[in-house]
Amino acid sequence: MSISLWKKWVPAVAGAVMLASGIAQAQGSKEAEAAIKYRQSTYNVIYNNFGPLGAMASGKAPFDAAVFKRNAARVAFMSSIAPDTFPEVSKTGNTKAKPEIWSNKAEFDKLMKDFQDKSGALASAAQKATSVDDVKAAFGATGASCKACHDKFKAE
Amino acid sequence: MSISLWKKWVPAVAGAVMLASGIAQAQGSKEAEAAIKYRQSTYNVIYNNFGPLGAMASGKAPFDAAVFKRNAARVAFMSSIAPDTFPEVSKTGNTKAKPEIWSNKAEFDKLMKDFQDKSGALASAAQKATSVDDVKAAFGATGASCKACHDKFKAE
Repeated sequence: MSISLWKKWVPAVAGAVMLASGIAQAQGSKEAEAAIKYRQSTYNVIYNNFGPLGAMASGKAPFDAAVFKRNAARVAFMSSIAPDTFPEVSKTGNTKAKPEIWSNKAEFDKLMKDFQDKSGALASAAQKATSVDDVKAAFGATGASCKACHDKFKAE
Repeated sequence: MSISLWKKWVPAVAGAVMLASGIAQAQGSKEAEAAIKYRQSTYNVIYNNFGPLGAMASGKAPFDAAVFKRNAARVAFMSSIAPDTFPEVSKTGNTKAKPEIWSNKAEFDKLMKDFQDKSGALASAAQKATSVDDVKAAFGATGASCKACHDKFKAE
C-alpha cells in the first residue's frame, strides 16, 4: 500500500471502525462532554470509596474501622455533589444517564435525596462502629438506594 | 473492497490509526488503569469546583458567597482524597503523573500537604466571606500550590 493510498484510507476506515466497535456514540457539545465527565468523575470517586465498604460488609475483606469510617464519610460527602452533576446540557452525549432523569425530575430528586440520607446514616453509623455488624444494615440500605436509582435512571 | 478484505484490514489499520493519533499510550494493568481513572476523577472534581472560584476571584464572574463557600469546601475535602490516588501501581499507564512522584515522594508529599493546607485556609476564609476581597489572597495561595505541584510532578 503506497503512502498516499494509506493516507486516503486512514480517516474512512478509522471512522468505520469506531462506529463498528461502538466507541463513537452520539456526541454532545463540548459543554455537554465536560458536564458528563464531571458526573462520571463524581460517581467514580463514589464507586472507589464504596467498593471497599462492600468488600468489608460482605466479609470478603477484614473490617477496618478507620477505612470504613473514612470511606463512608467520603461517599456521604460526594452524595452532596452528585445532584449538581446532572445539568440539562448533560442529557446528550456519551452517557448512561437516561432522559427520564430530566423528564421525571421529581422521582429522580427523591431517589437522590434517599441516597444522601442513607449514605449520611452510613457515615454516622461508621463513626462509632467497632465491628462490621454495626454498619451492615446501613451499608445495605445505601447499596439499595444506589440500585433503586440505577435501575430506574441508568442505562445498562 | 470486499467484505473479507475489509475484515482483514480493520484490525491492522485501526491499530495503526490509534498509534498514529496518540490515543494508545503505554497501557498498564487493569489495576493501574482503574487507579489512574480514580486519580483523574478526583482531580476532575477538584477542577470543576475550583474553576468557578477562579472566575469569581478574577472578576470574570460575579461573587456568589454561597457557591464560593460550597465549592471551596469541596476542593478542601477532595484534597484529603487526593494523596490516596497515587498508589505505586498507578505509575504506569495513560497518565501525566511523572515517575518523580514515587521516586521523590518526600517532596511530593510536602506539596500535597501544602495543597491541603492552602485549600483548607481557602475554605475557612470562604465561610465568612462577603466579598471577593475576603478570599482573593487565599484563592491565590491555593492556585499557587496547585501550580507548584503540577510544574514539578505533572507532564505537559
